[in-house]
Amino acid sequence: MRRNILLLFFLFFSMPGLILAESGENLWLRYDKVSDNVFDDYSVLETLYVEGNSPVIGVARNELINAIKGMTSVDLDLSKKVSGSSILLGVGLNEKIDVQGLEEGLESCGPEGYVIRRVGKDKETQVVITANTDAGVLYGTFAFIRMMQNEEDISAINVVETPKYELRLLNHWDNLDGTVERGYAGHSIWWNREKDFNDLRDHYQIYARANASVGINGTVLNNVNAAPEVLTDEYLEQVVRIADLLRPYNIKVYLSVNFSSPAVIGGLEDSDPLRDEVREWWKDKVEEIYEEIPDFGGFLVKANSEGQPGPQDYGRTHADGANMLAEALEPYDGIVMWRAFVYAPSGDDRAKQAYTEFVPLDGKFHENVIVQVKNGPIDFQPREPFSPVFGAMDETSLMIEFQITQEYLGFSNHLAYLATMQKETFESDTYAKGPGSTVAKATDGSLFSQKHTAIAGVANIGRDVNWTGHHFAQANWYAYGRLAWDHTLRADDIGKEWLGMTFSNEDAFVEPSLNIMMRSREAVVNYMTPLGLHHLMGWSHHHGPEPWTEIEGARPDWLPKYYHNASEDGIGFDRSESGSNAVVQYEEPLASIYNNPKTCPENLILWFHHLPWDYTMSSGLSLWDELCYHYYDGVEEVRLMQKKWDRMQGLIDDERFEHVRHKLKIQSREAEWWRDACLLYFQTFSGMPIPAELERPVHDLEELKKIKFDMTHHN
Amino acid sequence: MRRNILLLFFLFFSMPGLILAESGENLWLRYDKVSDNVFDDYSVLETLYVEGNSPVIGVARNELINAIKGMTSVDLDLSKKVSGSSILLGVGLNEKIDVQGLEEGLESCGPEGYVIRRVGKDKETQVVITANTDAGVLYGTFAFIRMMQNEEDISAINVVETPKYELRLLNHWDNLDGTVERGYAGHSIWWNREKDFNDLRDHYQIYARANASVGINGTVLNNVNAAPEVLTDEYLEQVVRIADLLRPYNIKVYLSVNFSSPAVIGGLEDSDPLRDEVREWWKDKVEEIYEEIPDFGGFLVKANSEGQPGPQDYGRTHADGANMLAEALEPYDGIVMWRAFVYAPSGDDRAKQAYTEFVPLDGKFHENVIVQVKNGPIDFQPREPFSPVFGAMDETSLMIEFQITQEYLGFSNHLAYLATMQKETFESDTYAKGPGSTVAKATDGSLFSQKHTAIAGVANIGRDVNWTGHHFAQANWYAYGRLAWDHTLRADDIGKEWLGMTFSNEDAFVEPSLNIMMRSREAVVNYMTPLGLHHLMGWSHHHGPEPWTEIEGARPDWLPKYYHNASEDGIGFDRSESGSNAVVQYEEPLASIYNNPKTCPENLILWFHHLPWDYTMSSGLSLWDELCYHYYDGVEEVRLMQKKWDRMQGLIDDERFEHVRHKLKIQSREAEWWRDACLLYFQTFSGMPIPAELERPVHDLEELKKIKFDMTHHN
Repeated sequence: MRRNILLLFFLFFSMPGLILAESGENLWLRYDKVSDNVFDDYSVLETLYVEGNSPVIGVARNELINAIKGMTSVDLDLSKKVSGSSILLGVGLNEKIDVQGLEEGLESCGPEGYVIRRVGKDKETQVVITANTDAGVLYGTFAFIRMMQNEEDISAINVVETPKYELRLLNHWDNLDGTVERGYAGHSIWWNREKDFNDLRDHYQIYARANASVGINGTVLNNVNAAPEVLTDEYLEQVVRIADLLRPYNIKVYLSVNFSSPAVIGGLEDSDPLRDEVREWWKDKVEEIYEEIPDFGGFLVKANSEGQPGPQDYGRTHADGANMLAEALEPYDGIVMWRAFVYAPSGDDRAKQAYTEFVPLDGKFHENVIVQVKNGPIDFQPREPFSPVFGAMDETSLMIEFQITQEYLGFSNHLAYLATMQKETFESDTYAKGPGSTVAKATDGSLFSQKHTAIAGVANIGRDVNWTGHHFAQANWYAYGRLAWDHTLRADDIGKEWLGMTFSNEDAFVEPSLNIMMRSREAVVNYMTPLGLHHLMGWSHHHGPEPWTEIEGARPDWLPKYYHNASEDGIGFDRSESGSNAVVQYEEPLASIYNNPKTCPENLILWFHHLPWDYTMSSGLSLWDELCYHYYDGVEEVRLMQKKWDRMQGLIDDERFEHVRHKLKIQSREAEWWRDACLLYFQTFSGMPIPAELERPVHDLEELKKIKFDMTHHN
Repeated sequence: MRRNILLLFFLFFSMPGLILAESGENLWLRYDKVSDNVFDDYSVLETLYVEGNSPVIGVARNELINAIKGMTSVDLDLSKKVSGSSILLGVGLNEKIDVQGLEEGLESCGPEGYVIRRVGKDKETQVVITANTDAGVLYGTFAFIRMMQNEEDISAINVVETPKYELRLLNHWDNLDGTVERGYAGHSIWWNREKDFNDLRDHYQIYARANASVGINGTVLNNVNAAPEVLTDEYLEQVVRIADLLRPYNIKVYLSVNFSSPAVIGGLEDSDPLRDEVREWWKDKVEEIYEEIPDFGGFLVKANSEGQPGPQDYGRTHADGANMLAEALEPYDGIVMWRAFVYAPSGDDRAKQAYTEFVPLDGKFHENVIVQVKNGPIDFQPREPFSPVFGAMDETSLMIEFQITQEYLGFSNHLAYLATMQKETFESDTYAKGPGSTVAKATDGSLFSQKHTAIAGVANIGRDVNWTGHHFAQANWYAYGRLAWDHTLRADDIGKEWLGMTFSNEDAFVEPSLNIMMRSREAVVNYMTPLGLHHLMGWSHHHGPEPWTEIEGARPDWLPKYYHNASEDGIGFDRSESGSNAVVQYEEPLASIYNNPKTCPENLILWFHHLPWDYTMSSGLSLWDELCYHYYDGVEEVRLMQKKWDRMQGLIDDERFEHVRHKLKIQSREAEWWRDACLLYFQTFSGMPIPAELERPVHDLEELKKIKFDMTHHN
């Protein structure tokens, strides 16, 4: 027995115990020691030469110093003059160093891109990080750090990078009372904080560094369901503080504004965008903001959508409203992001309305207006086809809005890596200018000459110590930023980067963890809404399955039945030409492909078609059986995720290992909940058995129907 | 689409719809139509000749008439005189009919046995059901009905049956306030009823017929934790009513009595069994009872056990107490059943105490005392070794007490067929008189010349419409009765009988359902307490797993840790000679077999041994891995049960099908709960991983620990 105790003692102190507890607070910027032999020449890291001393350059310099100190045993000499091996950092270093290709690189990398090159040879080599602006140097520095974090070969770096989108934003749906709409990681980091701003600087710096590290250069500080009060002095003071803090990280602040602000806080009679008094109010307000924040980014507007006020309240168009704000912002190079997320309860198929309402306005928006379009036609479902608005407005600057927070993908309880979903949208072919006209190209300026290119991600960030609730939800913040910089990056490459930086570069860890991530979103689709199903979630809070929900007096398009249309004769939303004809909003050949259930991709088939339960799928199975298999596959995949993750014990710190393990248990239980709820409910219509080889449900429909949540705010 | 609707319409009305809803109220006495061609000669059922007209014979006659009417299309002529083919029913029919073997049968079948023979040939055949008493005729009649229900071949019946035990009792743990201790099927059928007794006669008759059909001939009407008040007029009046009602079914009533009754309701100074006044009080009370109930069965006593009063309160022995009551009952042939379920909190290993306390009293009990011994040494756990008291008291009448209600086997929510468990006890070899001295033989009079042989089952009966909460729990009532009659019957044969009578004789139904039943108890053992683990359940209510429970000031032997002893160095209760030495209470070679972990049956290994987590099992696996596999096997088995049951849809009525399906879902979820709770808790000691190929837990230990129930009464 003694031997066993000793063995356990040894195991306890030799394995997980040695890896220190880790809260996740530092995100992917942990700068842990990397392997001692990953760099060919450590002496290059010993000397740092920095050109320039702006705040942005200062941030880059400090970051690099801390990274080298953290990751290596190099004794960094900051006093040394440049000579021999060294890192050189600064704008326009081509003027200092004569290296072939540096100038060409700088000519092509644009205002925020950068060039990194390893030059020289033997004991006299340099790493040159240069750009056309301080911002470019900052991004180049973070790129170099990322290479170190990932233990990449830096012996012959030769990188020229340019961001694909000009404006890369986070949208915080943060309310001024400190709650966060669709926030699952605690209250707002910006509003209604108990701590003094100065006591939060260290905290905010992590946020700023994290964004800078992936190239995010703008952040909208408040909810699109905007309180007019954000434009009052009380809140603008906080905006100024935040802007000052984020400026050295090349992050501009933006605000969501309420279209009725002139009336509500300005005391005007109304907020009609064509009235001079209203236009003047906005101009004055904008001037007031720019006096304090000269690099203020602009406004984000949700107007005439889900009850928000807007120009249509006065018989004006979205263009009228957006252009009024654009004119006010134009002198300061400010931007208006005007959301196309509109749909009326009494209108046509909700999936068609953004297109119907906005496409006719193409060409009518001012140059500094960008129309912000959600990736899909409904609302951030686990899987949607791309919005047909993309590619359909070639005279308008369009931007994609992704949701990083997992409103419909299990909140912060489910591991769902979203890069694969975003890639799916980016790579969807709109056929706007023939084959290859992907959504990415239709928005990044390569297909249409947009005045501005931009992209937005609804943040999943809150006051939780690990920022995002689920440790793996950090990956969605990270991956969004990386794809906003370069949508051609592969989801698996990004995941691998993130895993290495955040947890460990060991293959034994990265390979299975990446496998978990890469398969996770499809698992969620399968156990929630496979085969093109959508909007089956709970009323209002959107937590859990409620395909049965009936709410008296509710908008029909807020109820799952509007979308699944399940009855004895089948399931699905007929958007073919025999139904709502939403398919014609897509270019050919897509319209025809979607229109025919035999050619429609089966992962969207119930999005576009209402089909009988015994419809024969390409597998040869009936629709009902196919549906069952998908739901069961989803549950099985989560069980596999659990198994894979359990083998990670000891390869990373216990604290995060256990936290993720705990979350996976919730996901596993909730996947079963979704599966049982949806299948048992749909079975009341199909009348068909769950295939005999599958596990049986473990829930009762009637009991599931009784589950009620009280979750006005989820954080 | 039209075609599909028609098809659904057809399916709806042609399949499950045609099988009428069924509440389960009639238990296994449904008398549904049997196949038209199961009997060689229906004319034999057309004429019924009944000898005698006692109430018991009347019950037999009515039952047979109803059975024939229900099960066949025979036009039963009750007016016809016996001639040609007929059924003959009555005591001592050998005196009326000269049939070879009838007399010999009657000579050997004892007071309650019976003879059934098919005699004659061609169109002149009779079925003769005869016995030495009315009771025997009643049991023979039910046996014949059972054959019909099971569609058995009756062309050449030749049956002589004798019950193995003289007294075959149910123990109702019913409190006078109407609650039922360990009752999971609603409140007491006997006490504190709102309905008038007369309005309950139909209801009670089902109970009486069901018991008579399997040969149960006694019932204890109240909880062994007895309220003294049951012996007051108020309650005795109800006892008289019940006795009158049950008498025609050959069922005697018994009462549990509180040993302090003389003091509490008699106003005596104390209840010392050696004081004349006390003895007189009991004699008077007994006389009073017998005046009203001349065939009153006797008393069941739980004394000096779990806080109940008893003779030891006055320095007297269990024998002193039991004999006092025996003397009072003796003039009326009444019986005392004195429970050996005793254990003191400060004493030796609880498993040893019944033996330690009772074996020295062997030979000291009056002839009309029966010592009632639970099947295992602790308390009705999913698996225990047999109690070493069996075979150890050859001068005492011993009876086995089984628990039919599932206190430790999932209440009425888990399907657990207990016949396999009871058979395991019956067939356990005590070696009391060498090999083959099974527990059955040690209690049925064949090994020792017991004055009385008896058996008791703690009932699972309540006011629920289906009597037992779970439809399949009816099988445990049925099977207990059948085994009480003949412990040599096979569990699968009994299960098959019951399924046929209760649901359907179709092979497509019986085969898989029987498979579910036969594997169910081992499934429960696996997901609750495999490998000899025991007593891991929740405090007080005994619902769910709580291996961690700590209750301040609680009796240690009521806490799971007393039993599992899990720590870093291993798990299990060392009852070998290096531990509590409970093994020596067993005869050799059993003592040596149990004493050595290498020879101890592995399904009891942690009952008798404390072993290190890495102990190598016969499978080659470590104890920890083996434990994991057993817990997971349990869960998998329940999932299989669900799958098998789902295929039964349409083969039986929807009402019971759905009810069982619902219960199986609960069982499936709770099996996972047990598995996760026990393994995650034990893992905190073992420090070993759950084998990688197994599913991961879906619960968190800390969350499971927080679960608290408020369930003072479970019904």
